[in-house]
Amino acid sequence: MEIQIGVIGAGSCDSEIDSLAEDVGREIAKRGAYLLCGGMEGVMEAACRGCKKEGGKTIGILPGPSANEANPYVDIAIVTDMGHARNAIIAASCDAAIAVGGEYGTLSEIALSIKNGKPVIRLCSKWDIEGTIPAHSAKEAVDIAFKQINSDYIIDIC
Amino acid sequence: MEIQIGVIGAGSCDSEIDSLAEDVGREIAKRGAYLLCGGMEGVMEAACRGCKKEGGKTIGILPGPSANEANPYVDIAIVTDMGHARNAIIAASCDAAIAVGGEYGTLSEIALSIKNGKPVIRLCSKWDIEGTIPAHSAKEAVDIAFKQINSDYIIDIC
Amino acid sequence: MEIQIGVIGAGSCDSEIDSLAEDVGREIAKRGAYLLCGGMEGVMEAACRGCKKEGGKTIGILPGPSANEANPYVDIAIVTDMGHARNAIIAASCDAAIAVGGEYGTLSEIALSIKNGKPVIRLCSKWDIEGTIPAHSAKEAVDIAFKQINSDYIIDIC
Amino acid sequence: MEIQIGVIGAGSCDSEIDSLAEDVGREIAKRGAYLLCGGMEGVMEAACRGCKKEGGKTIGILPGPSANEANPYVDIAIVTDMGHARNAIIAASCDAAIAVGGEYGTLSEIALSIKNGKPVIRLCSKWDIEGTIPAHSAKEAVDIAFKQINSDYIIDIC
Repeated sequence: MEIQIGVIGAGSCDSEIDSLAEDVGREIAKRGAYLLCGGMEGVMEAACRGCKKEGGKTIGILPGPSANEANPYVDIAIVTDMGHARNAIIAASCDAAIAVGGEYGTLSEIALSIKNGKPVIRLCSKWDIEGTIPAHSAKEAVDIAFKQINSDYIIDIC
Repeated sequence: MEIQIGVIGAGSCDSEIDSLAEDVGREIAKRGAYLLCGGMEGVMEAACRGCKKEGGKTIGILPGPSANEANPYVDIAIVTDMGHARNAIIAASCDAAIAVGGEYGTLSEIALSIKNGKPVIRLCSKWDIEGTIPAHSAKEAVDIAFKQINSDYIIDIC
Repeated sequence: MEIQIGVIGAGSCDSEIDSLAEDVGREIAKRGAYLLCGGMEGVMEAACRGCKKEGGKTIGILPGPSANEANPYVDIAIVTDMGHARNAIIAASCDAAIAVGGEYGTLSEIALSIKNGKPVIRLCSKWDIEGTIPAHSAKEAVDIAFKQINSDYIIDIC
Repeated sequence: MEIQIGVIGAGSCDSEIDSLAEDVGREIAKRGAYLLCGGMEGVMEAACRGCKKEGGKTIGILPGPSANEANPYVDIAIVTDMGHARNAIIAASCDAAIAVGGEYGTLSEIALSIKNGKPVIRLCSKWDIEGTIPAHSAKEAVDIAFKQINSDYIIDIC
């Protein structure tokens, strides 16, 4: 089974956050994992763009009724037609989540990811929620995500 | 159509929070609204109990596959079998939400309720999230909820 | 907990089906149960109208993001914003389902209701699916629904 | 974006249906599309197995709360924790659906796929539902699926 790193963030963002999200996407691709996100614009599109630039693979868990709304960098479109409830699917399907910036939708994903026992890394996010792990660069965020996933595996084995 | 006040909170709670949630349920029933919640134990059960003591009506949006898991004070059991995704249904179906205490599931409901433009009142909750309205008693919480709903209606009419 | 009889059918219908659905709604109200449906137009609206004419109570499990789309006879609006996936909630939440006419959405509800072990009665429906029970009048359909629910209870007790 | 062919069928099946589903999976992989399914056992596992034998890629839209329940041939696990409601996601996310045998869950997927305007091919399935296209071999089923998808594209272009 593939490792799936969730990237969560708002559907619109400034150029700084866009650039950061793109770098997160690149780092995920470099490590051979799939990028999982909401498949729309803003942080989601920037992260998918970065992932594709490094030859990675992207999954978009879309809120609406059609794959046509996916950003152009989505490879695998999961069409939920479930609005915000699709956030719960992202939180349940990722091995770890990285929040880049983000508004209330992102906050719901942070909350549900933690509830599901997933590592949640925050990058440039105002949501300084207990249980999230701060990172200071895209590379650090993705490094932490992989370290956390692997330590989970070790715990499972021991 | 009935007014539906959401009560959100954890599936287990101490006696202080239980008592507060019961009072919130009572206050909702006194005003003739329906109480909408997750239908399980803890804050949800306490609120439903209070509502029924005042002759009110309760709706439980259940996470599992059967109505049997509802607390004994649920009148209308909506069986979603959708786990945490049912939180999005609570956030979309309430006219206002009152958070009593609460953990990460509650945080996801706060976030989605705000995203949906619903008034969110917090009572004894650690989630001091921007956009929520603090209350200091069950009565005040329910008063704020109704005032906010009515002011929305006024805005719609004007 | 209230008994909830599902009425399933298409969002538009001719006058014969409309009249039949209205009668089903009336019969449900006469027996003191809640009518559960998709909350939209066509068969759903006709059934809700009949239920309200007899002083009954109606629940609409809505597919879209707002309670505003509910037909005017819905008392309790459950806003799912989940499109066709809300059919699964109807199938899981009803004690029995009555299909009046119906197209492909109705077929999915028939299938899921049977899968969930719920009695499914069909009235003027082209979906002659194995496991459904035919009825020849609104009254007969609702009688069968209640008989089936009660026989389930007897089975549980024995 | 990848082409995603849905394979729908029951969670347990006899050896004839298993063999047919495996062949469907092989044929999908040979054409370079992704196989989309419910990710569990029976027809789903057989189809995934066939797909992997030909070096293809598989997506499992899982009903439960964990990726651990996926069959061993699932590459991309979408964890919905939504029970039967995940059938609606399969119907919305596939470009075409092939029903191999199947019970009531499959019937709900056939109904929703047709409602969504997706081509539905049936293979050894008792659900001879209006709007489905019969096929007599795995190869023919997948050929029809691709022909239907391409004719849709042509219609879009013209």
